[in-house]
Amino acid sequence: MSNFSKIDAFLDKHLSESITELSVLTAQPSIAAQELGLTECAGLVSSMLQTRGFRVEIFSTGGAPIVFGERKGRTNKTLLFYNHYDVQPPEPLELWNSPPFKPTLREGRLYGRGVSDDKGHITSRLFAIDALLETEGELPCNIKFIIEGEEEVSSLHLHEFVKENKPLLAADACIWEFGGVDQNEIPIQYLGLRGICYVELSVETAAEDVHSGLGGSIFPNAAWRLTWALNSLKDRNEKICIAGFYDGIQPLTEQEMKLFAAMPDLSAEYKRQYGITGFIKGLQNGREINIAQVLEPTCTICGLTSGYQGPGSKTVLPARASAKVDFRLVPDQNPDDILKKLRVHLDSQGFADININYLGGESPARTSPDHPFVGIVVETARDVYGVPMQLVPLSGGSGPNYPFIHDLGLPVASAGLGYPDTRTHAPNENIRLDLYLKHAKHMARVLKEFSINP
Amino acid sequence: MSNFSKIDAFLDKHLSESITELSVLTAQPSIAAQELGLTECAGLVSSMLQTRGFRVEIFSTGGAPIVFGERKGRTNKTLLFYNHYDVQPPEPLELWNSPPFKPTLREGRLYGRGVSDDKGHITSRLFAIDALLETEGELPCNIKFIIEGEEEVSSLHLHEFVKENKPLLAADACIWEFGGVDQNEIPIQYLGLRGICYVELSVETAAEDVHSGLGGSIFPNAAWRLTWALNSLKDRNEKICIAGFYDGIQPLTEQEMKLFAAMPDLSAEYKRQYGITGFIKGLQNGREINIAQVLEPTCTICGLTSGYQGPGSKTVLPARASAKVDFRLVPDQNPDDILKKLRVHLDSQGFADININYLGGESPARTSPDHPFVGIVVETARDVYGVPMQLVPLSGGSGPNYPFIHDLGLPVASAGLGYPDTRTHAPNENIRLDLYLKHAKHMARVLKEFSINP
Repeated sequence: MSNFSKIDAFLDKHLSESITELSVLTAQPSIAAQELGLTECAGLVSSMLQTRGFRVEIFSTGGAPIVFGERKGRTNKTLLFYNHYDVQPPEPLELWNSPPFKPTLREGRLYGRGVSDDKGHITSRLFAIDALLETEGELPCNIKFIIEGEEEVSSLHLHEFVKENKPLLAADACIWEFGGVDQNEIPIQYLGLRGICYVELSVETAAEDVHSGLGGSIFPNAAWRLTWALNSLKDRNEKICIAGFYDGIQPLTEQEMKLFAAMPDLSAEYKRQYGITGFIKGLQNGREINIAQVLEPTCTICGLTSGYQGPGSKTVLPARASAKVDFRLVPDQNPDDILKKLRVHLDSQGFADININYLGGESPARTSPDHPFVGIVVETARDVYGVPMQLVPLSGGSGPNYPFIHDLGLPVASAGLGYPDTRTHAPNENIRLDLYLKHAKHMARVLKEFSINP
Repeated sequence: MSNFSKIDAFLDKHLSESITELSVLTAQPSIAAQELGLTECAGLVSSMLQTRGFRVEIFSTGGAPIVFGERKGRTNKTLLFYNHYDVQPPEPLELWNSPPFKPTLREGRLYGRGVSDDKGHITSRLFAIDALLETEGELPCNIKFIIEGEEEVSSLHLHEFVKENKPLLAADACIWEFGGVDQNEIPIQYLGLRGICYVELSVETAAEDVHSGLGGSIFPNAAWRLTWALNSLKDRNEKICIAGFYDGIQPLTEQEMKLFAAMPDLSAEYKRQYGITGFIKGLQNGREINIAQVLEPTCTICGLTSGYQGPGSKTVLPARASAKVDFRLVPDQNPDDILKKLRVHLDSQGFADININYLGGESPARTSPDHPFVGIVVETARDVYGVPMQLVPLSGGSGPNYPFIHDLGLPVASAGLGYPDTRTHAPNENIRLDLYLKHAKHMARVLKEFSINP
């Protein structure tokens, strides 16, 4: 593909400028869970789009604003990029080797909260656009961006926004916010996402904490109530005990089974990287793990808090206790249904005292592996990565792809700059600069091929 | 008892000076759990004893120092006061109406961490000694003080110290660190204390937290391991499921049963004061509650911590989780035995991965209600409180009375300045100044009656 030599040369030459732009964006904290810096970050993203000649609108949502940008191109085809400017909380801070909001280059990697998820994807795509504009003077197709600020808190307002703005968002295809290479440097295209239902369970048993010597034998204990309620949700064999929880789950198609069989065995890599000694549910080989990882719904305790948590001992009977719990959902489960079943379960098990605070949810959704746009994204990777993309039927993660697939009717293809040690949601989140550059080159190719495809 | 008129007049006149001394002592933080300010506080207590002509020794223990003081008196009888200068952590700070280490007077009460437990007892007893020295020029008997700094962390080094210093601590009787009046303003004498076994249970399932979308279906989750392990310790009917846990528990004597029957019904008061709607185990009336409160051993979760505990949602699978758990023990359980049985239980239930960190323990112990010293403390109260003390066979709380009763062979009687709303271990700990004064008057009477008793 010699027609990309000028584009590639531009990208090779200007990488450090794009990394500087990413560093500016990363240095702006934008933590959705803590409602920190979101408006400021939306403004920063808007100005980056405007600099490239995009018409920009910032929409209020009741939560973090949604940034929309569009610029016309040579053809009448339209590609929509979905990204988000919010990031996960950086805690625990003591495990970072450099401050999370002070992006730092070390050995070909840029470290900082959000460099991979998802700010690096925003700037590398803008970088690809810079290359197209510089070398061709125009865009090959119409490009739209929708960049939200609540992805890390279950995209609270996005679904409604999409439904209410269908003409504005109208497009022919969508590139998703993330992606990356696997342990063998093969770029992965996820065809879908698990859904999620995120709740905080809490209980209050008294007006204040009580001396455990006074109350231990006679008073209700919030920490015990919570422990027993949680225990009722999932047994020690990982079976989720909420009645009807597994209803409506779709079996794998034959084609999807084949795609899973082609995936690499990551079991040894996971053990090394995360310091685990084994997997749950007796999972042994890579294929079992790959399938379970994305096709089994989950009930994960993300956090527990109650009573005294300082050093040493304090003899106190806690009045309050709470747990953060996320359920990952697979087609065709949905969060509203799971939420209802959770309430019924707790009530029927004698836990009417456990309060459920719904913190957000998304339905699972996936694109068919047979869609032509999926093929374009797969094949354009070959020129950059040396191999075509590997298709994976579903990602273990979640995201708001449902309204894009089911309300806008778009094929959604993922591609990105991540890699196995990118540490999204964890301390020392980082990107590799070589993969950042490759993603920009890939996106330039996708845009051009897509624009001329019938 | 007109021979106390001069003593009482002194105490009435000098109350504010003693409260000032208590305020100075309270303003010195001395948090054993956090190893904060302990040496400083030991020094302060020592100087308060030296000011009264006590010979003082400060003993290193490996933990907080133990302060010993003695002063000879008119007779050859010796009374030993046991007190402690350490306090509970003040958290949660936001629930205090005035800063915990800035003692504050409001409506006849002094607020501050430790004013009741146990610094007020130290200074009110010194106040009684001041009155005796001022009015009589000498003490009626020999007085010894042992004031430790680790009571709130299970008196880690006290038992060994007592065993190694029997001649130094030799006495005829012991007054315990605490006590107070009940809801009807009747002074209570606890004849014994429950024991305690305090542990931190912790588990680590990975080197770091993992994105819950990646690991939820395949990785072990520390928060779940902890939840299941805790659930195995006690069932929802409050039955502790550790094999042999209830072994060796002594039944109530007939005399003890009578004492319990004479106690007031506090159920309504507890509901009002602590904002609870009911009691556990179906406990209904006051007598059931009074007996259960002190005669049933417990397993109390004092704190839970794991994963993300901030606002909103974070989709993380925790690598670490821990719980603080205290077991209250009754005669003749003991902490070493319970600790062994806990390990066996966890191992046999498939929780060998749960680590036990033993944070301290004490055996339960009690004094016979028939001991003559008990009678002296009961009867001398009449002149101050208008009624004699009410005997209670055991307190729900714990403390290191075992070595005093079983190694030193002393009768141990409790008496103090507490009252039902004194809020030890909780925010807004406080004392009533009228009860502070009464305790000093009572102690002066105990010292005099004890000194002339055969």
